[in-house]
Amino acid sequence: MDWSKFFIPTLKEIPIGTEAVSHQLLLRAGLVHMLTSGVYSYLPLGLRVLKRIENIIREEMNAAGAVELFLPVLQPIELWQRTGRDKTLAEVMIRFKDKKNRDMCLGPTHEEVITDLVKGFVQSYRQLPINLYQIQTKFRDEIRPRFGIVRACEFIMKDAYSFDKDKEGLKKSYELMYQAYKNIFKRCRLSPVIIEADSGAMGGDVSHEFLVTAPIGEDEVVLCPACGFASVEGDSRHPGQKCPQCAKEFLEKKTAIELGHVFQLGLKYSSALGANYLDEKGQEKPIVMGCYGIGVSRLIAAIVEMNHDAKGIIWPAEVAPFDVEILVLKTDEPQLMTLARQLEQELARRGLAVLVDERDESAGVKFNDADLIGIPFRVILGKKTLSDKTVEIKNRRSGAVQLVPVASAIEKTAECVGS
Amino acid sequence: MDWSKFFIPTLKEIPIGTEAVSHQLLLRAGLVHMLTSGVYSYLPLGLRVLKRIENIIREEMNAAGAVELFLPVLQPIELWQRTGRDKTLAEVMIRFKDKKNRDMCLGPTHEEVITDLVKGFVQSYRQLPINLYQIQTKFRDEIRPRFGIVRACEFIMKDAYSFDKDKEGLKKSYELMYQAYKNIFKRCRLSPVIIEADSGAMGGDVSHEFLVTAPIGEDEVVLCPACGFASVEGDSRHPGQKCPQCAKEFLEKKTAIELGHVFQLGLKYSSALGANYLDEKGQEKPIVMGCYGIGVSRLIAAIVEMNHDAKGIIWPAEVAPFDVEILVLKTDEPQLMTLARQLEQELARRGLAVLVDERDESAGVKFNDADLIGIPFRVILGKKTLSDKTVEIKNRRSGAVQLVPVASAIEKTAECVGS
Repeated sequence: MDWSKFFIPTLKEIPIGTEAVSHQLLLRAGLVHMLTSGVYSYLPLGLRVLKRIENIIREEMNAAGAVELFLPVLQPIELWQRTGRDKTLAEVMIRFKDKKNRDMCLGPTHEEVITDLVKGFVQSYRQLPINLYQIQTKFRDEIRPRFGIVRACEFIMKDAYSFDKDKEGLKKSYELMYQAYKNIFKRCRLSPVIIEADSGAMGGDVSHEFLVTAPIGEDEVVLCPACGFASVEGDSRHPGQKCPQCAKEFLEKKTAIELGHVFQLGLKYSSALGANYLDEKGQEKPIVMGCYGIGVSRLIAAIVEMNHDAKGIIWPAEVAPFDVEILVLKTDEPQLMTLARQLEQELARRGLAVLVDERDESAGVKFNDADLIGIPFRVILGKKTLSDKTVEIKNRRSGAVQLVPVASAIEKTAECVGS
Repeated sequence: MDWSKFFIPTLKEIPIGTEAVSHQLLLRAGLVHMLTSGVYSYLPLGLRVLKRIENIIREEMNAAGAVELFLPVLQPIELWQRTGRDKTLAEVMIRFKDKKNRDMCLGPTHEEVITDLVKGFVQSYRQLPINLYQIQTKFRDEIRPRFGIVRACEFIMKDAYSFDKDKEGLKKSYELMYQAYKNIFKRCRLSPVIIEADSGAMGGDVSHEFLVTAPIGEDEVVLCPACGFASVEGDSRHPGQKCPQCAKEFLEKKTAIELGHVFQLGLKYSSALGANYLDEKGQEKPIVMGCYGIGVSRLIAAIVEMNHDAKGIIWPAEVAPFDVEILVLKTDEPQLMTLARQLEQELARRGLAVLVDERDESAGVKFNDADLIGIPFRVILGKKTLSDKTVEIKNRRSGAVQLVPVASAIEKTAECVGS
């Protein structure tokens, strides 16, 4: 892919009114663009990161036995009235009356819709357990959007819903999701703190929150470095005194970004909406539910918070928009452009995604932009390539540079990327 | 993938209030589910078809040089006021006032947003041409939703936007999209009529509509079988008299579904929104635009309209949710289940998507459901497999049946599917 055709509008200056480093870098590197407060476009580079994260999530969800579907954004309020959440979520819900005079809302989440769907089709214990998930845009009328895509009015979530016949089944489904979440975050190179948390508006008994401590975030966690205890600040159910052996003066308070949240919902939604099944004895019982969310678009911001330096983003390999960037410093040298195309083709043949900066710009501009967008490896074709028949391979994270003969450039690059 | 885990809620009866065969079959085969009039969930089987169609579209769009991004659903009305389309599209636009008192709408289309985006980043002719597309949910407040997912309030579109420095550039971009559309529809086994059409609310000079004639649809086309002339009924710019050599009595009038529409927009949006560039001489000029839409979710319905029989859907290979369905008629015979798992694994290893009907249901139920969901090939493991060591391979479209020794079942199935 050529830089000049890919629409990567990088910015030299820090955009006004931005406080989070991830917000600044995502805007400056041309990954996202703000349409209006709390509403963002994903530009081609940002969409590639989003798709790679989505694929990691899909792979882990499918491996855990969950099945993907796609639920509507438009939802009748009537469904929400039956669980009472038209009131409890009123503050964030976007509502309107349509031309048929129906009271509608934009789904801030999908417990009601999925429970109603499953209710219509599951009659017997033989159809359970089932776990359904989607990756879908959600809408919340945030009065104070913050930190760019971290708290936005329109954002992408993965939400899964498990349906079991009893509590033991729910515990198994929950454990599968808990483990899948650990896998997903690990593959995204995030090390979340996992905290037993308040179930809040979701309802239910047990829930765990996955948070990553960062310079920014909407949550605060209290950590004890000695015993590993962690708690969400302000969570009345898990106050500091739960860890009596930790001396208060050693507890660390840190801001954190919530990445995911898993809930053992129990019967709240199935009871309210009448989602029952017939058990082995032919008795009608309510389905036992769990729900499992990940803030997909927010993950991008969290990854950038944890992976950057003063010059720009440093993408972990598995979520990088491209694996390799080829910088052609003198685009008017046909030799260099021919070599760039050969490298690009050969690396693509090995399954690597390659970006070629073939713009008619100075070396300085190209180096700065490469640092900013943070592709893990760059191959530099310049003066030395012409004079000494060498190319430079640079690791964005370590800064390590290798001078490699042109003849072995493909092999060496593929080796660096580890493919 | 096992049927019992995949959530395929098939229906025996034709749902009440449905007129289109595609609507009936998509509901009965468990591909979609209606939440409320004009609003549908895509169940796991339906989502797989959707994803396969999306991938065909992506491949052809990328091959034509277009670059994917993802624009917001939430849009400030202010942007629409600048092109006057807050009024021309008022009938279908879903509007609301948010908690910050902003006038917002849900994007029924994205010309305004993308023009505003490109305006901010394109300054020079050297950055043109560019073609950006997305696959995104659109919202229209349809007073009379019809034919299931054909005319819905929430639906998925692929919309592309080209930006050129002059009319010649636009013509080239347009021609690339026109050809890409032909490729996309061909791969989906659709043979659209292509008609020079009215540009309507979009504006611009030239536009072409891609329609497929079907028993249902919102459009009417007039066709002359003798000369190949085609026109959209009621299009004032292209009345029947444009084909004077066709005798009126031979003209055929047919209902049709609009699949796609391409527009040479010209300067309408760039002028209204001030999207200019500096040409080779340093003069400021408005960018010349085109836009190109495909109704992605609607394609599913069109494909079903053209590919079904009395028993159910007959998926064309390239968009089928699975390539092969294995029917185990006696799930209590461990031999058959073991063989089914072997077949599944080996076919998956060859890149085929396999559905295994391992439900504890009668052969009749399984045959009927297999006909209904319409996977191109089915492999039947039953009595004869135990007694004669043979399996039956059946082609859903032709009905042709082969009896094949168990030992060559994998080879023969792969051969049938053509992989």
